[in-house]
Amino acid sequence: MQVYQAPLRDMKFVAHELHADDGFGDLPALAEFTPDLIDAVLDEAAKVAQEVLLPLNHSGDIEGCTLENGVVRTPKGFKQAYDRFREGGWCALASAPEWGGQGLPESVNKLTEEMIVAANVSFSLYPGLTHGATTALESHGSDALKQRYLPRLVSGEWSGTMCLTEAHCGTDLGLLRTRAVPQADGSYRLTGGKIFISAGEHDLTANIIHLVLARMPDAPPGVKGISLFLVPKFLPNDDGTPGPSNGVSVGAIEHKMGLKGSATCQLNFEDSTGWLIGAPHKGMEAMFTMMNTERVSVGVQGLGIGEAAYQSAVWYAKERLQGRALSGTKNPTGPADPIIVHPDVRRMLMTMRAWNEGCRALCGWVSRALDAEKHAADPEVKQRAADFVALMTPVVKAVFTDLGFETANLAVQVYGGHGYIAESGVEQYVRDARIAMIYEGTNGIQALDLVGRKLPAHMGRYLRSFFHPVSGFIAERKGDAELGKLVEGLEKAFGALQLATATIAEKGMADPEEAAAAATDYTRLLGLVAIGFCFAKAAFVARDRIAAGSAEPGFYRAKLVTARFFFDRLLPQVSAAFGAIKAGKGSMMALAAEDF
Amino acid sequence: MQVYQAPLRDMKFVAHELHADDGFGDLPALAEFTPDLIDAVLDEAAKVAQEVLLPLNHSGDIEGCTLENGVVRTPKGFKQAYDRFREGGWCALASAPEWGGQGLPESVNKLTEEMIVAANVSFSLYPGLTHGATTALESHGSDALKQRYLPRLVSGEWSGTMCLTEAHCGTDLGLLRTRAVPQADGSYRLTGGKIFISAGEHDLTANIIHLVLARMPDAPPGVKGISLFLVPKFLPNDDGTPGPSNGVSVGAIEHKMGLKGSATCQLNFEDSTGWLIGAPHKGMEAMFTMMNTERVSVGVQGLGIGEAAYQSAVWYAKERLQGRALSGTKNPTGPADPIIVHPDVRRMLMTMRAWNEGCRALCGWVSRALDAEKHAADPEVKQRAADFVALMTPVVKAVFTDLGFETANLAVQVYGGHGYIAESGVEQYVRDARIAMIYEGTNGIQALDLVGRKLPAHMGRYLRSFFHPVSGFIAERKGDAELGKLVEGLEKAFGALQLATATIAEKGMADPEEAAAAATDYTRLLGLVAIGFCFAKAAFVARDRIAAGSAEPGFYRAKLVTARFFFDRLLPQVSAAFGAIKAGKGSMMALAAEDF
Repeated sequence: MQVYQAPLRDMKFVAHELHADDGFGDLPALAEFTPDLIDAVLDEAAKVAQEVLLPLNHSGDIEGCTLENGVVRTPKGFKQAYDRFREGGWCALASAPEWGGQGLPESVNKLTEEMIVAANVSFSLYPGLTHGATTALESHGSDALKQRYLPRLVSGEWSGTMCLTEAHCGTDLGLLRTRAVPQADGSYRLTGGKIFISAGEHDLTANIIHLVLARMPDAPPGVKGISLFLVPKFLPNDDGTPGPSNGVSVGAIEHKMGLKGSATCQLNFEDSTGWLIGAPHKGMEAMFTMMNTERVSVGVQGLGIGEAAYQSAVWYAKERLQGRALSGTKNPTGPADPIIVHPDVRRMLMTMRAWNEGCRALCGWVSRALDAEKHAADPEVKQRAADFVALMTPVVKAVFTDLGFETANLAVQVYGGHGYIAESGVEQYVRDARIAMIYEGTNGIQALDLVGRKLPAHMGRYLRSFFHPVSGFIAERKGDAELGKLVEGLEKAFGALQLATATIAEKGMADPEEAAAAATDYTRLLGLVAIGFCFAKAAFVARDRIAAGSAEPGFYRAKLVTARFFFDRLLPQVSAAFGAIKAGKGSMMALAAEDF
Repeated sequence: MQVYQAPLRDMKFVAHELHADDGFGDLPALAEFTPDLIDAVLDEAAKVAQEVLLPLNHSGDIEGCTLENGVVRTPKGFKQAYDRFREGGWCALASAPEWGGQGLPESVNKLTEEMIVAANVSFSLYPGLTHGATTALESHGSDALKQRYLPRLVSGEWSGTMCLTEAHCGTDLGLLRTRAVPQADGSYRLTGGKIFISAGEHDLTANIIHLVLARMPDAPPGVKGISLFLVPKFLPNDDGTPGPSNGVSVGAIEHKMGLKGSATCQLNFEDSTGWLIGAPHKGMEAMFTMMNTERVSVGVQGLGIGEAAYQSAVWYAKERLQGRALSGTKNPTGPADPIIVHPDVRRMLMTMRAWNEGCRALCGWVSRALDAEKHAADPEVKQRAADFVALMTPVVKAVFTDLGFETANLAVQVYGGHGYIAESGVEQYVRDARIAMIYEGTNGIQALDLVGRKLPAHMGRYLRSFFHPVSGFIAERKGDAELGKLVEGLEKAFGALQLATATIAEKGMADPEEAAAAATDYTRLLGLVAIGFCFAKAAFVARDRIAAGSAEPGFYRAKLVTARFFFDRLLPQVSAAFGAIKAGKGSMMALAAEDF
């Protein structure tokens, strides 16, 4: 059964308690978002997620989207849910007040995102893609385009898409063929086919605004000749109502492994009118503005699905009676004990729990940096926050989505045979989680971004935004009588990370394939240390709260247990990653392609 | 695209070259199976897999099975394929000649199984379940039952099932409720509902023979009161033709994550006539005869799907053009290089390759032990082989299926976005592979079997059947100038395994929860060392063959590369598992159930 209650207590811990000393300080620009207001937003978001979106998650998976005569229908209930969502102002949450948004801090917004994807990731893509399009348009669009499109996109009256991929090119967008021919009036005519377009066509909004990568006739080859265009499904009339159709048609909707409530379309543009966003041939830059924000959000998809899978597994593990506890019967009046008594079931539940809490904690830190990058008054803080965001974006995207998938799989394993059956609802989490490891840049691409771009940038400056707080924390807390052992575990893992970094820097300088060969393991290693650091911090906060006589000792004691479990059982993965990195590219690259 | 060519060269390497010195010696009882005959069988099996079964794998997934008016239909083409399969004698391959089987050694049979599951795992379950039923019947059935049912089951004219699970009990079969009431004529009347019955109903055979676990009215409670019954779908006439219907009906077919070509049924028995197999209340023993054989076969499912996924990924990685090699353009006349040039793609392909070759090698060793257990003349050899099989059965089942799933996932990742689309065929491998981690005893149950039963049995005797050859090999080969480094890697991993074993033995003696808490990590650890041992042996064979001027140096050089990759990149996982084991049960068991 799909069970989900937003983990509000832990979210508030992350929002208010865990990162108070993260060095980004208070942000006066966000002063209006008081803790009370933040809590109220989180509480309301939880209601929407649980009451409006969750009930449509499983039915949406079963029913899927349909395409008939060029019209795409979303699953039953999605339209009504979207209307409620939009009317409640949830589409506009994170957008700029200037365009009708609520300007919510990212440190709060990412938590609401987590709830929404946990409840219904397919649904989340409709407003999610709009938000991505909004971001790109806001940063790079002309005033005229912004005035015309942003208010309706921000409100959710219209939705947006990102049209990048073509059948023959995804990662290597330099190969793309969609053409944009300039017209006398300053507009362009676009012709070409795009695939994998999330929310490319649907029945939720009156218009759909496509952001399309295309190539002008005079464009230089490769990625340096790609421009970004805004192409509406319907050309808006001057009063803003949708006007004539614009030559955008749906070739097919993709038959996907999961995410079936989300309409993923093949779109054909035939002489469709579009307007340039940003400078000619600078489309990749505009796209990356959007992409970087989206990558953190895709990471949050991993976390959200992981949380829903965890809760569904906990529910089952308490409900399902099989066998007796090794430590003696726990349910003497029943025919058997609930399976939560069994150590191997505990191992799975605690693993899921630790990944979720760890990713949530790390995401909280990265979100605070997103806010500081935007709003900090001190340029040094602003720069440090930006560095940290640049460094952590690929880590959050890749590691959270890998872990979300692992967590969803553990839920199926807790259910046993019942988990393999659609009715259980948990195999859906596996199928839904799988795509997040691929889209917005595969996790391999994230790893290359981290190792190839982020590590060497500015002589390793990005990395210092992470290494300094970690080494400072270790130095300060190592001697703690109670928690010193955790800190020592962190220190050891951090040592491995430092060594791995030095190895990659040294070898990769001489041979970029060496860095690339280490990329995925290094990303995991960095993620593990970052999560470990968050757990170590959380343990100190929890310990101090208990000592100070907190009224919620249960929450803090559980946090201490989960932190210990992470250090006991999951952080040892550091040595596997480190060992693989040390080995270098030799055996990985030795076979000739024809020997495979 | 689903690409599969049976890896015959590697299979013959495993069958003839790798395990020649495994200490089980030649088995005169199997002398008729000369290397030439074995090769001929493998070559023919490859044709059947590739030509008859593979073309139905993807279409079977798309179409699935249907239930209409109590009749189950398998996907288009399955019936014709089954007839060809049966007529070719493939159903009878591993069965005893006494009943019309061909008595193929398991060391060959497991390789043919690998091919069949690689080509079409859904199809494989129909003959596969029959083979399981045959095994149980052969070992525990009365002569009359054997005479009546075995010839037709062995030939594949009829098929078999295993009816264990009920809605409320899977792992804990002691809870089952299906009742068997004795009749005056020595038969029984069975009433109850079973779920998850593979091949429970279908249109491939004239009759279906169900092996059903049920409880007699006077049965003691729990697992000690379960008996095994043979319940045919149609009661056979005296001439062997199917006679009257026997009250077995299909309640539903399950909607599963994958394996959609396989009809998984809910079966209802209503006063169905059955006959006891084995002694009253000893049904679990009879069932475990079958279960243990089947567990190795389920492990082979992981391997087979892993191989198909690997080959499909290699095909795509050579075909798909994206980006340019970091070491310089490799395909100058094309728009981009094939993605196989990229280190992170290599990492995935080599990982898949190493898991597959490693599991195949280990399976070859276990299969030789299965043969020696059955046919060795020397009682010492027979005992040692039986010990090794007992030890390795849970490892093969759990580790191979975990790795098969990981491998299938890597294939999707190599395909990127295209891998998430049904048409690619690779997401099917993920869905199909997922069940193998669950059925025939979840992988957690395998781990408990290993740690709770197999390790302590006879004062650790089973383990010695593995530890002795490994330590002997290390002592003998450690100083090798060329490959000594591999052996040192193995020695280190083996040392961790020995320490982990001692830790579990010590802690587990005082507290069985400690052993259970370590079980899954220990199983992985043992699997890694066993695969490492096989790779180390393979490296020596390959090195010596090249030195001796083999006509196939390419094959052996590739084997050396894959072995090195395993030691470089995968064996380091040992330290993660070892670290987790050392931590003990503390943080895993600390939370109260209500704190989840």
